[in-house]
Amino acid sequence: MINSVEKADVLIEALPYMQKFAGKTIVVKYGGNAMVSEELKRNVIQDIILMKYVGMRPVVIHGGGPEITAMLRQLGKETTFTGGLRITDPETVSVAEMVLVGKINTEIVTLLNQYGGRAVGLNGKDADLIVAQKHWAKVTENGKTKEADIGMVGDVDRINKGILLTLLDQGYIPVIAPIGVGLKGETYNINADSVAGEIAGALAAEKLLLLTDVEGIYRDYQDKSTFVSTLSFGEAQEMIQSGSIDGGMIPKVEACIQALKKGAAKTHIVDGRQPHSLLLEIFTNKGIGTEVVKE
Amino acid sequence: MINSVEKADVLIEALPYMQKFAGKTIVVKYGGNAMVSEELKRNVIQDIILMKYVGMRPVVIHGGGPEITAMLRQLGKETTFTGGLRITDPETVSVAEMVLVGKINTEIVTLLNQYGGRAVGLNGKDADLIVAQKHWAKVTENGKTKEADIGMVGDVDRINKGILLTLLDQGYIPVIAPIGVGLKGETYNINADSVAGEIAGALAAEKLLLLTDVEGIYRDYQDKSTFVSTLSFGEAQEMIQSGSIDGGMIPKVEACIQALKKGAAKTHIVDGRQPHSLLLEIFTNKGIGTEVVKE
Amino acid sequence: MINSVEKADVLIEALPYMQKFAGKTIVVKYGGNAMVSEELKRNVIQDIILMKYVGMRPVVIHGGGPEITAMLRQLGKETTFTGGLRITDPETVSVAEMVLVGKINTEIVTLLNQYGGRAVGLNGKDADLIVAQKHWAKVTENGKTKEADIGMVGDVDRINKGILLTLLDQGYIPVIAPIGVGLKGETYNINADSVAGEIAGALAAEKLLLLTDVEGIYRDYQDKSTFVSTLSFGEAQEMIQSGSIDGGMIPKVEACIQALKKGAAKTHIVDGRQPHSLLLEIFTNKGIGTEVVKE
Amino acid sequence: MINSVEKADVLIEALPYMQKFAGKTIVVKYGGNAMVSEELKRNVIQDIILMKYVGMRPVVIHGGGPEITAMLRQLGKETTFTGGLRITDPETVSVAEMVLVGKINTEIVTLLNQYGGRAVGLNGKDADLIVAQKHWAKVTENGKTKEADIGMVGDVDRINKGILLTLLDQGYIPVIAPIGVGLKGETYNINADSVAGEIAGALAAEKLLLLTDVEGIYRDYQDKSTFVSTLSFGEAQEMIQSGSIDGGMIPKVEACIQALKKGAAKTHIVDGRQPHSLLLEIFTNKGIGTEVVKE
Amino acid sequence: MINSVEKADVLIEALPYMQKFAGKTIVVKYGGNAMVSEELKRNVIQDIILMKYVGMRPVVIHGGGPEITAMLRQLGKETTFTGGLRITDPETVSVAEMVLVGKINTEIVTLLNQYGGRAVGLNGKDADLIVAQKHWAKVTENGKTKEADIGMVGDVDRINKGILLTLLDQGYIPVIAPIGVGLKGETYNINADSVAGEIAGALAAEKLLLLTDVEGIYRDYQDKSTFVSTLSFGEAQEMIQSGSIDGGMIPKVEACIQALKKGAAKTHIVDGRQPHSLLLEIFTNKGIGTEVVKE
Amino acid sequence: MINSVEKADVLIEALPYMQKFAGKTIVVKYGGNAMVSEELKRNVIQDIILMKYVGMRPVVIHGGGPEITAMLRQLGKETTFTGGLRITDPETVSVAEMVLVGKINTEIVTLLNQYGGRAVGLNGKDADLIVAQKHWAKVTENGKTKEADIGMVGDVDRINKGILLTLLDQGYIPVIAPIGVGLKGETYNINADSVAGEIAGALAAEKLLLLTDVEGIYRDYQDKSTFVSTLSFGEAQEMIQSGSIDGGMIPKVEACIQALKKGAAKTHIVDGRQPHSLLLEIFTNKGIGTEVVKE
Repeated sequence: MINSVEKADVLIEALPYMQKFAGKTIVVKYGGNAMVSEELKRNVIQDIILMKYVGMRPVVIHGGGPEITAMLRQLGKETTFTGGLRITDPETVSVAEMVLVGKINTEIVTLLNQYGGRAVGLNGKDADLIVAQKHWAKVTENGKTKEADIGMVGDVDRINKGILLTLLDQGYIPVIAPIGVGLKGETYNINADSVAGEIAGALAAEKLLLLTDVEGIYRDYQDKSTFVSTLSFGEAQEMIQSGSIDGGMIPKVEACIQALKKGAAKTHIVDGRQPHSLLLEIFTNKGIGTEVVKE
Repeated sequence: MINSVEKADVLIEALPYMQKFAGKTIVVKYGGNAMVSEELKRNVIQDIILMKYVGMRPVVIHGGGPEITAMLRQLGKETTFTGGLRITDPETVSVAEMVLVGKINTEIVTLLNQYGGRAVGLNGKDADLIVAQKHWAKVTENGKTKEADIGMVGDVDRINKGILLTLLDQGYIPVIAPIGVGLKGETYNINADSVAGEIAGALAAEKLLLLTDVEGIYRDYQDKSTFVSTLSFGEAQEMIQSGSIDGGMIPKVEACIQALKKGAAKTHIVDGRQPHSLLLEIFTNKGIGTEVVKE
Repeated sequence: MINSVEKADVLIEALPYMQKFAGKTIVVKYGGNAMVSEELKRNVIQDIILMKYVGMRPVVIHGGGPEITAMLRQLGKETTFTGGLRITDPETVSVAEMVLVGKINTEIVTLLNQYGGRAVGLNGKDADLIVAQKHWAKVTENGKTKEADIGMVGDVDRINKGILLTLLDQGYIPVIAPIGVGLKGETYNINADSVAGEIAGALAAEKLLLLTDVEGIYRDYQDKSTFVSTLSFGEAQEMIQSGSIDGGMIPKVEACIQALKKGAAKTHIVDGRQPHSLLLEIFTNKGIGTEVVKE
Repeated sequence: MINSVEKADVLIEALPYMQKFAGKTIVVKYGGNAMVSEELKRNVIQDIILMKYVGMRPVVIHGGGPEITAMLRQLGKETTFTGGLRITDPETVSVAEMVLVGKINTEIVTLLNQYGGRAVGLNGKDADLIVAQKHWAKVTENGKTKEADIGMVGDVDRINKGILLTLLDQGYIPVIAPIGVGLKGETYNINADSVAGEIAGALAAEKLLLLTDVEGIYRDYQDKSTFVSTLSFGEAQEMIQSGSIDGGMIPKVEACIQALKKGAAKTHIVDGRQPHSLLLEIFTNKGIGTEVVKE
Repeated sequence: MINSVEKADVLIEALPYMQKFAGKTIVVKYGGNAMVSEELKRNVIQDIILMKYVGMRPVVIHGGGPEITAMLRQLGKETTFTGGLRITDPETVSVAEMVLVGKINTEIVTLLNQYGGRAVGLNGKDADLIVAQKHWAKVTENGKTKEADIGMVGDVDRINKGILLTLLDQGYIPVIAPIGVGLKGETYNINADSVAGEIAGALAAEKLLLLTDVEGIYRDYQDKSTFVSTLSFGEAQEMIQSGSIDGGMIPKVEACIQALKKGAAKTHIVDGRQPHSLLLEIFTNKGIGTEVVKE
Repeated sequence: MINSVEKADVLIEALPYMQKFAGKTIVVKYGGNAMVSEELKRNVIQDIILMKYVGMRPVVIHGGGPEITAMLRQLGKETTFTGGLRITDPETVSVAEMVLVGKINTEIVTLLNQYGGRAVGLNGKDADLIVAQKHWAKVTENGKTKEADIGMVGDVDRINKGILLTLLDQGYIPVIAPIGVGLKGETYNINADSVAGEIAGALAAEKLLLLTDVEGIYRDYQDKSTFVSTLSFGEAQEMIQSGSIDGGMIPKVEACIQALKKGAAKTHIVDGRQPHSLLLEIFTNKGIGTEVVKE
């Protein structure tokens, strides 16, 4: 049991972080295991509410992989492939949108409100928040790399941050589904890490926190002793090019790079499997996971 | 072809209505055929944008019946009944939410933005906009009327209009899916007419416009000569009790009554099958459909 | 007769122009026949009110030639000349001021208010709106050009736009008589086109609309086929220098040039003899008259 | 010669009055000799500017009798009478408007601006400031009192003070010509004292100061020892009814009564023939003229 | 050692209290041992800074007894008595003011600023914050109770809270020395508990926290088992009258009563000898000390 | 006796100065005889209040020499010296702080409030207004100049003007004691002239007025005919270097130079022994004392 004095000590230890981040925007990419386990989910929600109450301006971007797949299966929708890549045809993107916007987003919003926040769900179509364009995948076939049409997958073209500022200034917590809108009104599914990076950049966020299912980045994944606490901008780009950052981590590191380029101050890849990892990253000086920083 | 002078005359004819409704809130319930025909859909969108541009504050609430049914069928979800009433079990309400919030709402938002508006989609969970409680249906069995549990169907308990005012004051057009949130975070499907009536009341709207698939109200539906242009509050209640207003029209008239009770100034039941019926109702003195008014 | 659908079409046609000009300042020089015919007068008033109600910020500058002449005649005031130019002696400028400020201006203000506007009359003395200095006319005598003293005729020296912004921001329509004030408080009569140009420039107006009694500019006035729809800045200056723009039109074209130089976006010379020509210029894509533009 | 210490004493003596009236509205009716003598004119202007600079909110209403008469004579306009009363026919009211708005008002505005103020001229038509209705004069003929039609003479029906507040809040000095506008846009000439009283009431002015050409009110005009420094509301009404207040003074006392009834705090009848009488009334404790107060 | 999860738990436990008190005013009377021990002093400062950073509006009132006595002794100032009560003669009150305002207050302000706050020192003379009047002590001599003149000791007559609101709204922490100002500018020494109570009332504070050197209130001071956690308004008054609240505690309980009467929501007598007792009272549900509440 | 017309003349003479200085910040260094004589004290207070009421923003910095010395003597505190310079040891600076902040400052604040101002006392510790660093004195011993440690005497390092702007914008008069705070919270005594100069610079004051006990600056103090009305920046620096400005005047002239360098517009050395010298300097064109100006 923690006694009163210890409690006080913990709160006092958090004070400098409260001071440092007061009024600052914190962008959280919420995904992975932290969206599956009921307890981790509650932890993340509480952490975000705490940020809000000590004066930060949290913004949440969420993913939603497994539930989209489950719904596609339930609808008997068969997935087609090109050069080994899954194609997001119009029906698929429509299902993805329904699940992301009409199921996962509303659930997160509801949880935040249950815990005392005032959350508002958004997607890229609201006030044209995320204007997107078609993403052309790179496919290597017979040693040649070419661009492949994988359907309604998008890249962020422009963030119209007005609606975010309106909501943040009034004390709301925006919760964003990674759906983009094309110039002709078409729907694009976008990688949630990438959306989080772009939004952190557009808002000149103090921090981008990407929840993952790993401890962070290793120089050599086989060797736990090669864990990297801090990665510079340049090193991160090098490690991607040299292939020493593995597949699933690439979009996360690229999101960090993009966020830093566009104006965010700091980015962190945080282990979402650890309870209250967001809170510990913010309120204690013991760094958690890997941070990617400008210099 | 209309010549220049005639064009000018039409614009000048609209002037007094622009003056009258400047800065006023207009709540539109969008549903029925006007959501099906591509041309009617475009007309409604243009009408709403026009309202916005001449200085009104439109708010849109939409329904979504057929698409929910189609999705349920596609998912192989069987509907169960109690006392002849369809039961909205948790899985059903989840599908309804997905379709309303993640498909119909995003489509309307996108269309409004394509036509130059700045629309933002909402549902009752956003900032607890629509707090709901369980609706107990009245079932008559063997001559006895009793309350039946038909699942996750809700009644509006309270409208938290803060988020609407935040958005309206910043020039956004709120588009609302009729999903309510219970005190424990549960999801309720609510009749869209009823939501529109409550929101019109809460915002003290100048007008509630309910789009329907009929001309308006008849004292006797068989006899087209009994069309009613204006119905008083009291008469409307009487006609419901006497049974002279038929089934599908009852929730619409009740929405009008509720809106007027809670603070709306005027309510209209408008034929959505007629092109630009919203615009003609607002900008010309030729009344369209039936209006239900306080006195 | 125009039917409902056609009415709706006209309003919908106007929509993009409403969107384009929302919040923009439109400066109207009101003069010529449009100030004489009761019907044209009513048309102009309605057009200005319509601009206001769809969200523009109209500013009106008026002339007043014939009524000043009539009053001078009624007072038995003889006009003197120098080198063929009429001299505005102190008594004449005082009569001009009385008629412009105390008769024409109040009449326009009253009409705008009768039609639902909130107009406020101004002249250059109010809050030193139009600071003027003596205009020295160019007189050619015996082949020599020299400057002639024609009395209390002024050129605009400086526009103090503060009072205009105060009124526009509060939703009033400023109506301005072309009287300027000198540094010692003396009264100057100024050409109304010139005042309109300077004010359009100072307000960085979206449009300057000059009502005239001709269709617009012709390259050759004899030949109706040489009508010019769009004139560039440079061409306009050339045509003045080459003499191909005739006498009465020169101050109008110069007002356009001045407005564009000082910050206005576009200028138009519009035929005020055509009913609702302002409105048609603003709300339809069929250009009316000649526009003078920067490039 | 006044020495430095005496100068300082005078300024220090004024201090409590500056404190007392800071931010308060002072309505000045400017008329009589103070509008004729160049020196008195300059004095009044300086006094008003001083009020403004020490933080008061002065509002000026002016008359204009002699100049209107002169202009009517110059135009050869014959005056007609009914029951001994001059009739203000439409042509006469138009001349009155021209002279008041286009000559006297602009001159006062210019003088105030020359002395460092930011004055803006207004008349009752601007933003419908003074809505008026026909005044029916009481004529006694053959011992019978009846109402006589004396033309376009008006009574104040309603003051729309919005434009005054807009200007006062932005630091301008409103200067108002006593012209009213009827519901159909017609022009009314109104007694300037009466306009001043109504405006002082509508603005809940701290003071109404009426400049006159007498020392103030005497109980008996023959006997200078009967001078009245302070008159209560009730006494003033009695003296009017008993006839002990003479003709020219009646509208002034009635203006005071009206101002007090509608919300002004204090009213003063001040001798405008004495230099700087406004300033002395405001900044010294030696009362000048007669004050009419509520109790 | 506390581990990460426990740290997170403590922060999460504090969350509901952050939510509850966000934007609320908390008045702290700082005195006793907590002003003597360097460590306790630092604890109190940190606790106040934490309150500030999680969104509360702390206001500090401090006492200063021992230092005033020390300074009087150092100055060789002899204390005189009347009926057993110490007399605060003008020299004494001047020393008290110097020490309170020029030593203790500046020290607290400096400490708060060193720890990251933006504190501003005030006393009752600043903007007439605390208007006081002479306090007449009750002296019982020979069985008779009479009022005794004990010099420049004051009671609060009126709090002018304007300067507090100005500072709080701009994010400053006001630190107030208990010096009052009389109507003639005279200096009064006032009991700091009493000042704290009046200020908590005037600000309608959410909480008044009085730091003392005891655990709280006992029904019987001899018997530790009679500790009172919550005392109602009425009970507190009774206990004072019945004498069961002892001498030193009386002004504290009276300050609570006064605060509640004037508008504060809750008051607490907190043991200042316990480290971080303010913080624990605010952020944990384990009540510390005795609360005096309205019901 | 001054008559009414003369009174009016004095007020009118002051008008252009009111206009010129409206809204401008005037920094007054209050010290010397004007702090000793009861009448001069009252004069200064009235002058400052007058400045405030005609729309200026006065800021007062005061000294306090004799009272500090008196208190040190009363406390039996011996002064120690180094190289002929008095050493301000920690005990001495603490006494200085007590007297300046807790006695002189509160007295000035109270007087200003008694005369109708809303004054608030400040010292350099409030919101870190005056951040200071140790001042190293220059001592010449045996012909060598070296730096001497004279204790807790400080130089201004940085002015944090936020609290001043907060108070000035809300209409308060800040009264500042010349105590600075070091980076570790230590207390520094600073020359009041120097503080006044730095604050005038930081606020970009319109005027810095330094009250002294002499008429101003003489080129040769023996010869009264060498009085200097206006001194340029450069000349002032020269006169200091050449030694023609004597000891007591040096910090004053340096304060002027510093104020001008940092952004003040004009500085004045004013004879505080003359009644209302501040007021006469501000409101009459007869220059009093010596002004030091940029060019």
